[in-house]
This record gives sequence, structure tokens and C-alpha cells, in this order.
Amino acid sequence: MPELPTTPRGAATSRRILDAVAEEFAERGIAGARIDRIVEAARTNKAQLYGYFGSKEGLFDAVIADHIGRSANATKFDADDLPSWAVSLYDENLRRPRLIRLMAWARLEQRPTGFVFTDFDPEPKLAAVTQAQAAGRLRAGDPFDLVTLVAAMAFAWSPASSVYAASADEPAALHERRRVLLRDCVQRAVAP
Amino acid sequence: MPELPTTPRGAATSRRILDAVAEEFAERGIAGARIDRIVEAARTNKAQLYGYFGSKEGLFDAVIADHIGRSANATKFDADDLPSWAVSLYDENLRRPRLIRLMAWARLEQRPTGFVFTDFDPEPKLAAVTQAQAAGRLRAGDPFDLVTLVAAMAFAWSPASSVYAASADEPAALHERRRVLLRDCVQRAVAP
Repeated sequence: MPELPTTPRGAATSRRILDAVAEEFAERGIAGARIDRIVEAARTNKAQLYGYFGSKEGLFDAVIADHIGRSANATKFDADDLPSWAVSLYDENLRRPRLIRLMAWARLEQRPTGFVFTDFDPEPKLAAVTQAQAAGRLRAGDPFDLVTLVAAMAFAWSPASSVYAASADEPAALHERRRVLLRDCVQRAVAP
Repeated sequence: MPELPTTPRGAATSRRILDAVAEEFAERGIAGARIDRIVEAARTNKAQLYGYFGSKEGLFDAVIADHIGRSANATKFDADDLPSWAVSLYDENLRRPRLIRLMAWARLEQRPTGFVFTDFDPEPKLAAVTQAQAAGRLRAGDPFDLVTLVAAMAFAWSPASSVYAASADEPAALHERRRVLLRDCVQRAVAP
């Protein structure tokens, strides 16, 4: 990725670009996104945009990295409390539906099989799971499979759900009902 | 939807169109699909295609209905054996990755929240779940939430997975490892 700007003004422009890109790509995907709309929404120009991010694909990668960083802060992974991690992912998808839509576009448009991102490093999560398993606090099973399965449970009602996508404007009681079921089912699934 | 052809020749053409449509839409989505490519692959013409299916959206709905019909036959829902249902969904996604890709496009392009299909009727499944719960063979919880959660577990490695999408060319032992974990986790999650 090209160097990001270090001046306050450059950083503000780059922030506006990332926000405009997130909206455009989450709505329309990579093929459907229009750089003209991004440039207009971010009050910048194409030369500056390509100077910061290189290409449409560079923009997409940058916006994904930006969202993953923010999401990881809001959903702390704890191998000893996977039910709470799952519930935090449910809530994060309500708060910020864009990341999972961006991932779904990447899956459909770029990576039909395997990992959706090549620069994602699951090792810290897997090491924590392995340790919790060794200490008898977590069920047996391949750590990566287990994390994938718990994430899928948390994403059951996500904006990429193949069945039903929850939204923030639904009644609070409905969200709470799903959280209770999700927490209990994850608890049962991962118990030693 | 317009009337489908009843002559053998018309039915064969309509079948070729549906297959070509499935390939094109699963690969490129609704906005990205090109009717010209479909017409060429199905050895037909636009007049005939629109005569049978009305519009691009009509085509998409028809191909989804066609795939759901085939998939439902391969994955029998049994409220008393949800673990086996989940495993059959895992296998169906390996065999026919197109349906879940079609659903993922529909989610992103047409229905960001709520049901991914409006003409899907979950009632038979929900009635069976309610009956199994009443008989003490299944855990408590909203039947629709429960079915959604089990389906999400089955889709953990699907071609729409936000983490890792399985593919038929992976080693058989890897698929079997996931099936064993999936079956056991669903069993634990839904036990009375």
C-alpha cells in the first residue's frame, strides 16, 4: 500500500476518502463502485485518491484493514469466554454492518474459496484456543475449525446472512432473545 | 412469473436457459450478469428468454426457485435430527456451491435486511420444531431463531463464509473433521 499522509490536512483527507470508500464499496461492491462518487463524497480528486491508495483494489484493501482494526477493538477475542465474543460480534454487526458486507463482496468478487483475506493472521486466536483446550477449559477439536464455527454462529443474523439479517431498528427484545440463544448455544458447543 | 413452456423442445430450451443463468448470476451477481452471455451459452435469443422469464429479475427469481427445489431434495429437514440436517447442508454446499452464492448476491444487491427471499415459507420447518420442543426432544427457544442458528453453523465453511470457504478439492479427511465437529456442536446446542 502507498504511504499514507502524515500532515493533519492529509490525514483528514485520507479519513474522508476511507469513509466515502466504505460507503460506496459496502453498498455496491468492487465492480459496482464508482470512483467518481467516492471523489465527490470525499471532496477530493482522483490524483490525490490514487496518490494515497494506488488503485481501486488498494482502496478496497485499505478500507477493509481500517474496518477490521476498529471492529477488533469492539470485539475482544477471549478463548476462555467464546460466548461473550460471539455476542459482541452480533452487536458489532448491528452497530457497523459495513465490514461484513465488505467481506461478503470480497468473497463473491475475489475469493470464492479459502480465506476471504490473505493478510489475516489467525495464529494469536488459535494459540489462545489451544492453550485453553490444553488446560481443559475448552472442548477438543481443531482450533481453527472451532473459531470458524463460533464466528458463524455469531454471524447467523448478520448483514451477510443467507437466512435472516437483523437490523438495528428491530425491537430491543428481539435482539436480546437472539443474544440469549446465541450465548447459550455457543456455551454448550464449546464446553469441555 | 410468465408461463413456462410445456412442449419438450420448449422445456429443453428453458432448462438450458436456467443452467446458463445460474452460472452467470452465481459468478457475477445481478448487476454484473450479462444477458448476452446467457443467450449465447443457452443457444437461444433474447426474445425467447424474455418470453419465458419476463426480465432479468424474473430470471434471477426463477433460478433461485429452481436451485432451492433441488437443494431441498438433497437436504431433508428433520426437527428430530438437526445435526444430520446441518451435515447435509455442509455437503450440499460442496456439491452445489451456486445456490449459496446466488443467495449472497441477493442479500448484497437486493435485500440488506430481513429475509433474503420474500416467497420463502418457513412455517413447515417451524411447526416441526415446535412439535419436537413440545415433546421434549429439542431445546427451548424461538423456533425460527433456532433454525437460523443451526443453518448458520452448517454454513460456517460455505461459499459465502466470512472466514473460510471449503471446496470439494480439499482432502476428504478435512471435510470429515469439520462434519464431526459440526454434528457434535449442533447436537450439544439443540439438546433438550
